[in-house]
Amino acid sequence: MTPTVKVSLDEVRNLSYRILIQSGYNREHSEAIADMLYTCQLDDCQSHGVYRLLSCQSTMQAGKINGAAKPKVSSDESAIVKVDAQDGMSLLAFNSGLPLLVEKSKKYGLAAMAINHCFHFSALWPEVEKLSAQGLVGLSMVPSHAWVAPAGGKRGALGTNPIAFSWPRPGRHPFTFDFATSAFARGEIELYQRAQKPLPNHVAINAAGQPTTDPDEALEGAMLTFGGHKGSALAIMIELMAGPLINDLTSLGSLDFSDQIPGVAPYHGQIVLAFDPARFGYDPEDTDNDAAEHLFNEIVDQGARLPSQRRFAARATNLARGYVEIPQALYEDLKSLEG
Amino acid sequence: MTPTVKVSLDEVRNLSYRILIQSGYNREHSEAIADMLYTCQLDDCQSHGVYRLLSCQSTMQAGKINGAAKPKVSSDESAIVKVDAQDGMSLLAFNSGLPLLVEKSKKYGLAAMAINHCFHFSALWPEVEKLSAQGLVGLSMVPSHAWVAPAGGKRGALGTNPIAFSWPRPGRHPFTFDFATSAFARGEIELYQRAQKPLPNHVAINAAGQPTTDPDEALEGAMLTFGGHKGSALAIMIELMAGPLINDLTSLGSLDFSDQIPGVAPYHGQIVLAFDPARFGYDPEDTDNDAAEHLFNEIVDQGARLPSQRRFAARATNLARGYVEIPQALYEDLKSLEG
Repeated sequence: MTPTVKVSLDEVRNLSYRILIQSGYNREHSEAIADMLYTCQLDDCQSHGVYRLLSCQSTMQAGKINGAAKPKVSSDESAIVKVDAQDGMSLLAFNSGLPLLVEKSKKYGLAAMAINHCFHFSALWPEVEKLSAQGLVGLSMVPSHAWVAPAGGKRGALGTNPIAFSWPRPGRHPFTFDFATSAFARGEIELYQRAQKPLPNHVAINAAGQPTTDPDEALEGAMLTFGGHKGSALAIMIELMAGPLINDLTSLGSLDFSDQIPGVAPYHGQIVLAFDPARFGYDPEDTDNDAAEHLFNEIVDQGARLPSQRRFAARATNLARGYVEIPQALYEDLKSLEG
Repeated sequence: MTPTVKVSLDEVRNLSYRILIQSGYNREHSEAIADMLYTCQLDDCQSHGVYRLLSCQSTMQAGKINGAAKPKVSSDESAIVKVDAQDGMSLLAFNSGLPLLVEKSKKYGLAAMAINHCFHFSALWPEVEKLSAQGLVGLSMVPSHAWVAPAGGKRGALGTNPIAFSWPRPGRHPFTFDFATSAFARGEIELYQRAQKPLPNHVAINAAGQPTTDPDEALEGAMLTFGGHKGSALAIMIELMAGPLINDLTSLGSLDFSDQIPGVAPYHGQIVLAFDPARFGYDPEDTDNDAAEHLFNEIVDQGARLPSQRRFAARATNLARGYVEIPQALYEDLKSLEG
């Protein structure tokens, strides 16, 4: 067991805010980022919680990000909201465009938000859940760095390219998923490397393009997508939708831009789609005649789990006890960042 | 080698049309269906070509489909086109709504077409390619019959739920994929059954919910999704987007409606999304600075294949020689349908 420390919910937010301010993010960015880290940590999403403060700091140190960037929201009579993050972290840009995305999706039935020129490190589920919390269906995609080989390929061309979806369930937790289209997260491979453990099969290839279970070889080679050629096709779709379509970088472009400095957040765009069920003819309050709830019941009744159930259970526990548990080593690293 | 017969391109269309008319579809439906079968057969897509005439006929014989249904297109000031297929086959409904979907996606940047109350048997790629042929990005999803178990489950709750995507590449074939979110197509399992061959692992479970490689057990049990819990999450998203969102049946509802008569096309809805790259800020004609083409090159240059390449190659061959090759047994079945 990794030794852990208890950190109160207030302190999760406050510690994050203090470190972000000290790192060079202004008040607005620090609040937006701290809110995201709090949301993830509350759900025991360790990989995207306060652990990411380390990357927020190294991204700032690398010198390309603007910690005081003021996102520019623009739109016309279309159903598209454009947000230029102006080389800042993505989260404030998302928050800035969200009200107009919601308004447009209610007006037109569906709408898109294209965020450009942002650094991106965060989980997507808290963002799509901001849409489902307002009764909308949310879908979001981002590229990352080109560390993932296409099916049948020999080297990285695609990012870990997550896709997240949230479906509103009034009075209940939404149906939400958020997964990388790579078979493994890059951080997972690093954990195997540190533990000197072999990787599972079908996760990575070496620099010669051959299958490997050696984490060192994998990090010099490339990761694979989940689900073979289907996962690979999906990862390419995510590149196109969240890259060229919105006139922003692909994962290849992001990796080029980064100068491959370790720990720096990828730099690219993000696409967010919102759908208003009411405009499509669906009434989520009509629970007597709800095919979605019937499907969820049929899944749960046979012993399968809906995505995010573990996360929602962790949230309930942590809210009730008023604290989260964080690995002690990480907590000490964070305290030392505070100086 | 399966013995094949050569069928001229004209005869593929004419034979299809004659059989459809004889089966009870009216002129408009027969033309729309024959056009789809021709398009698939031209690309050597055997599973969705003239083979499907058998299912078109058995669907008519089962008595629920309306072979003369006149699709009703309706819309308002939103970016949504609704098409009530009126219990007819989906294809005429798609064609009826397509012009308005194109118009709305150009006006709003993105638009959706919701097709309701349709029988559905066809591949999705010819439909999303009708969008990319007009310079738009197309995305489509449909449920089917609840033969697929969710990850961790024991029985069917999801359909084979295909998703198709097409990206325009002016002057070239589009980037297109169209895949089932089940690990295997149902028809593939039937082929293994006929050949008395064991299935691969991770394709199916038996009626007790245990993994099986026995095709008979698999057909009594359930199929599995591709890509484990990620593929399962995606299949659920497809149920929601192409079912409850547009106020139509899920795969569970479709299976109930069918009375489980073999060979009858599922009855449900379909969602089609269209995006106008020009409204998002992307210029596909700007090939000097095209991140999408750069990505495609990077994939092909490392020896990987883009989806649909085999299909496009088959099309070139068949167009050049003026005929397609069809299994002889199937051709004889079709000729006997003609009576």
